[in-house]
Amino acid sequence: MTNDEHFMQEALKEAQIAYSKGEVPVGAVITWKDEIIARGHNQRETLQHVFAHAEMLAIDEAVKVIGSWRLDECTLYVTLEPCAMCAGAMIQSRVKKLIYGAKEPKSGVHGSIVNLFDQPFNHSIEIISGVLAEESSQLLKTFFKSLRNTK
Amino acid sequence: MTNDEHFMQEALKEAQIAYSKGEVPVGAVITWKDEIIARGHNQRETLQHVFAHAEMLAIDEAVKVIGSWRLDECTLYVTLEPCAMCAGAMIQSRVKKLIYGAKEPKSGVHGSIVNLFDQPFNHSIEIISGVLAEESSQLLKTFFKSLRNTK
Repeated sequence: MTNDEHFMQEALKEAQIAYSKGEVPVGAVITWKDEIIARGHNQRETLQHVFAHAEMLAIDEAVKVIGSWRLDECTLYVTLEPCAMCAGAMIQSRVKKLIYGAKEPKSGVHGSIVNLFDQPFNHSIEIISGVLAEESSQLLKTFFKSLRNTK
Repeated sequence: MTNDEHFMQEALKEAQIAYSKGEVPVGAVITWKDEIIARGHNQRETLQHVFAHAEMLAIDEAVKVIGSWRLDECTLYVTLEPCAMCAGAMIQSRVKKLIYGAKEPKSGVHGSIVNLFDQPFNHSIEIISGVLAEESSQLLKTFFKSLRNTK
C-alpha cells in the first residue's frame, strides 16, 4: 500500500462514520509532514450547516492546529471530487496538494462540471485523482441504494 | 435610494469595520423578507481563519438564524465580487439572489477569473452587480494606499 492509499484509507474511515450517521458518506484527512493533523466527515444534515462538508470540517480543524489560515505545507485527502466551495477553500488556504478518490459528476470542480483548479488564481494545487476511487464509489452506491430502499 | 442600495450601504458599514481592524475592507449582509438577518466583515487576519471572509461569516450567522443549511429565500449583499469559496458556499446553501458592488480582478468568479455562476450546478443564483461599486472600490483603494504608506 502506498502512502497515498494509506491516508485515503483513513479518509474512507471518516466516510464510514458519515454513513453510520445517515449522511452522504464522504471523508477527509489533512496531513502535515506525513502525519494526520485533522479529520472530517460530511455532517451537513446532522449539523444543518452548509460548511459541514468533510473537507471544510478538516480544513477548520487544520487551521486551528496550525494556528494560521495558511495550509501551504498540507496535503488534503478526500474520498470524493470536491465541490466549488471546498475547492475554493483549498485555494484560499493555499493547500499544497489535493488527493481524491471518486469523481462527482453532479458538483465536482476538477473537470466534472468545470475545472476550477486550472484557472489563473494566485495559488495552484498539485492534484492526484482516482486513489481508492472504487472503494469510495462503492460506499456511496451502497448508501444511496439503502436510502432508496427505506423510502 | 433603492432597496438594493440601502442594503449595500449596510454592507459598506461592515466593510468600514473591517478597515478599522486593518483588514481588507469587504462587508456583507444577508436579508430574509427584506430584513437583515446576518452581517459579516472580512476578518481573515484577525481570526487567522480561511473561512473569515465577509460572506462566509454572514452565511454562518444566517444558517444559525434560519436553523437550516438552506438559505433559499435569502439575498446576499457583498461589497466585492466573491471568490470561489464564497461563491461555492452560496451555491451550496441555495442563496436566492446575490448583489455585489465592485469587481475583483484577482479572484472574482463572476467573470473576472471564471464565471462559476453560469456552470450547470444544481442551483442557479440571480445576480446583480455594480451596486455602489464606486464606494466599495474607493474604500479598497484608500486601504491599500494607506497600507503601502505604512510599509
